[in-house]
Amino acid sequence: MDLYLFGIFLLACCAAGATGAVFQPGRWYDSLNKPSWTPPDWAFPVAWTTIYLLISFAGARVAVLEGNAYAMAFWASQAAFSTLWTPIFFGLRRMKGALLVMAPLWLSVAGCVWFNFQLDFWAGLAFLPYLAWVTVAAALNATVWRLNPGVDPIVPADL
Amino acid sequence: MDLYLFGIFLLACCAAGATGAVFQPGRWYDSLNKPSWTPPDWAFPVAWTTIYLLISFAGARVAVLEGNAYAMAFWASQAAFSTLWTPIFFGLRRMKGALLVMAPLWLSVAGCVWFNFQLDFWAGLAFLPYLAWVTVAAALNATVWRLNPGVDPIVPADL
Repeated sequence: MDLYLFGIFLLACCAAGATGAVFQPGRWYDSLNKPSWTPPDWAFPVAWTTIYLLISFAGARVAVLEGNAYAMAFWASQAAFSTLWTPIFFGLRRMKGALLVMAPLWLSVAGCVWFNFQLDFWAGLAFLPYLAWVTVAAALNATVWRLNPGVDPIVPADL
Repeated sequence: MDLYLFGIFLLACCAAGATGAVFQPGRWYDSLNKPSWTPPDWAFPVAWTTIYLLISFAGARVAVLEGNAYAMAFWASQAAFSTLWTPIFFGLRRMKGALLVMAPLWLSVAGCVWFNFQLDFWAGLAFLPYLAWVTVAAALNATVWRLNPGVDPIVPADL
């Protein structure tokens, strides 16, 4: 595996990861009504760090293979939508908007699973935990939205 | 050109574009001290729309070529950092933080220019306006940061 390639894909993941560092859940998230199956707070950074390492590995493997067009396009798309979700949810508290972001994110990750498996078994496998996690995250987003109807979004322009 | 590929790359650009729609500059941005060479407000959506179309075209051309590994990795990286910048600058008003995001964004776009030109002349050319624009945007970010020392960041967790 080309470690420079791994590093560039990991750099892209750092953009998504940075949103989790700068848009902190804080007391507001603690105060929300959440379903019983909500993962504990410590699970989120652990899951994301694992996922970032796995998908950077998958990216580096598939990037050097012929016929990688769709796998690479969906890799880029999941990176962008993954970076978009946190600012919408935690930065603006727009739960419905964040749920709308989950749709192309989920589809992009599913696309990565599908097209990676066509090219490389280990790269496909490396995307499966991400698909499972983003499915849980989308269900959590939807449930939290339903359970907390009175949340006001933040409008930075008004501040 | 494979139009589905073009569509997936354009979808990824929509994540970055969405940040411009939901994190509006508003009165806060109007009130900032800006340099004389600041592009007019109307130029930003025009420039970004043009750039998104051009780089989706470049992505779709290069994705089907052998040896596209670095071009594709940098494409993904620019998409993620481009999506990160707006929430940091307009969502949190962290001008120095946004400037730190500009570094990997600029490098990723420069990487796209370099590696696209190795593979396909038109794809390389299609990334040049983006490199010019992100250079201007970085200079604007740095200058606005210097000219407005007293700006308080927003901390959503405190609201």
